Amino acid sequence: MEALTVVPGLRGSLRRETLPDPAPGPGELLVEGIAVGVCGTDREIAEGRHGSAPKGRDRLVIGHESLGRVVEASGSAFRPGDLVAGVVRRPDPVPCGACAHGWFDMCRNGLYSERGIKQLDGFAATLWTLEADYAVRLDAGLSHLGVLLEPTSVVVKAWEQVDRVQARSWSDPRSVLVTGAGPVGLLAALIGAQRGLDVHVLDRVTEGAKPDLVRKLGGQYHSSSIDDAMERIRPDVVIEATGAAAVAMGAMAAIGPYGVLCLTGLSPVGRTLEIDAGQLNRTMVLDNAAVIGSVNANRDHYLQASAVLAAADRDWLDRLITRRLPLADFRSAFEPGTDDVKTVLDLER
Amino acid sequence: MEALTVVPGLRGSLRRETLPDPAPGPGELLVEGIAVGVCGTDREIAEGRHGSAPKGRDRLVIGHESLGRVVEASGSAFRPGDLVAGVVRRPDPVPCGACAHGWFDMCRNGLYSERGIKQLDGFAATLWTLEADYAVRLDAGLSHLGVLLEPTSVVVKAWEQVDRVQARSWSDPRSVLVTGAGPVGLLAALIGAQRGLDVHVLDRVTEGAKPDLVRKLGGQYHSSSIDDAMERIRPDVVIEATGAAAVAMGAMAAIGPYGVLCLTGLSPVGRTLEIDAGQLNRTMVLDNAAVIGSVNANRDHYLQASAVLAAADRDWLDRLITRRLPLADFRSAFEPGTDDVKTVLDLER
Repeated sequence: MEALTVVPGLRGSLRRETLPDPAPGPGELLVEGIAVGVCGTDREIAEGRHGSAPKGRDRLVIGHESLGRVVEASGSAFRPGDLVAGVVRRPDPVPCGACAHGWFDMCRNGLYSERGIKQLDGFAATLWTLEADYAVRLDAGLSHLGVLLEPTSVVVKAWEQVDRVQARSWSDPRSVLVTGAGPVGLLAALIGAQRGLDVHVLDRVTEGAKPDLVRKLGGQYHSSSIDDAMERIRPDVVIEATGAAAVAMGAMAAIGPYGVLCLTGLSPVGRTLEIDAGQLNRTMVLDNAAVIGSVNANRDHYLQASAVLAAADRDWLDRLITRRLPLADFRSAFEPGTDDVKTVLDLER
Repeated sequence: MEALTVVPGLRGSLRRETLPDPAPGPGELLVEGIAVGVCGTDREIAEGRHGSAPKGRDRLVIGHESLGRVVEASGSAFRPGDLVAGVVRRPDPVPCGACAHGWFDMCRNGLYSERGIKQLDGFAATLWTLEADYAVRLDAGLSHLGVLLEPTSVVVKAWEQVDRVQARSWSDPRSVLVTGAGPVGLLAALIGAQRGLDVHVLDRVTEGAKPDLVRKLGGQYHSSSIDDAMERIRPDVVIEATGAAAVAMGAMAAIGPYGVLCLTGLSPVGRTLEIDAGQLNRTMVLDNAAVIGSVNANRDHYLQASAVLAAADRDWLDRLITRRLPLADFRSAFEPGTDDVKTVLDLER
């Protein structure tokens, strides 16, 4: 099989190579890779700033936004030809309380592993194996759009967390502001639109695919400052998906009565800002405001994400994938493009 | 009757005066005041920095931490002689959705009024009226300790919010760090101890009533920096009750996996701090951390608070009240004392 591998911690080590075909163990599917998405985490790994290799090895097969077609499914509920994607995280064999209860996305001790990120080979390969318990079947009609399942699962979890935090008292959210019109932001806006909310999206770019994708959802696109947007929109919910510390802090300082800010973007450390911490603290108290961080997704979130994608407009989803490149062009895929939303490596070309 | 009144917005206007005895309307109790607690909000009002008078008047009867004895209770479930305290907040006659559902502590539009704070006369008076629907009966054995009901209700709400936010996935909290050993902090520690948690309290003072009150609960007292305390204790829950912006931000930056920080202290605006917002945002995301503000309390919280006080050690509660002064000494009561926990004005002396 052909795979993309990297030495975690070593910038510039990403390469394409031929590896022995994997053999499925008991309870595992053999899957031929159709496509793999590339995200900020993948780029951090390629830059040597994140990730770790399987024990005893230097190189990790990268890729965690998977899509494949089942080749062998012996003993499982799957059949050859089924479209599947893999859940990314696995709990430690000695699980913490959260992992033991299926909430491995809320792992307490950090001893989980992750396909393509932490200690387990990923899905940027023409052939891979997958435990049937961590496989999610996709609507066949989704075809290549199924590669959006993993980012959608992350967004489903974020929305679920927002819902649960808002359920702590009476709640009737009407509006959402999503900051950042990348794949996570736009998928968060999609779910907001599916819920019938008044959807607003803030991003720096002023033209191209992003504003148009937001308008196609019936949402409003903004490219003002975060302060202006918060003041003007007064959203009930904010989903932060830029990872820009200044945007996160700007939203936090202006959440509003019973508002919820859900942080999903990873900012680099060392972004020092001068903030009026007194005002932030006072306002959060008087407004009963909430800020939550949300990362990863568990099996339930993938199943819900599958339903979100099945209910979405296929053309709209297709336009989220702004670059589709053959595996050979992986270097280009790992460079973020201007006005890029989602870049996908096609594993069949 | 004798009352303490103030012109909101006018520093130095607090005075004792004789006013006409109030007459209870339909559904109202007539109550003789036993005691009234003095807190930071009262001091802010006396300094002209908070509060508003009833419509058409300049002066407001101050006081929202009430305790009284029912004199007239016609048509209600109360009887003369009952110990009662009053709920502070009232929803607007045209309530927002939260107020309409009994969650007026989560009011969305800010159009509530508050006894002794906002548009309604308070309880620093030898005689007052109270709607029976907003009266809470206290265990007779509590006697003068019933004046702690209002601050306890605020803490009950904060804990309820922590519980509901933690219930968004699997949770098994073991430890709580309370920052600030004032009345709110110590009552938060009391509830932590009643729940069997590992209780830690952080405050600046190193001797006197506060460390001793914490140890009497079986808790550990700390006077290190917030950073040190977070690093050493790694608490599952933090309840912030200092209102010091630096403490709030220090706790926020180090919440830990699935930790919850509940902000309850009001800091003044304009406390500008330089913080690593990138690190704060990144850690909150990767840790699925939560920060919530919590203010005020609704009727249910007062009822629960009454049970908390009834179950507490009376000597311990008595030691929370570090100063008990006659009404005539109100000026002294409004100056925060060194090593002071709760100051109470005795309305019967």
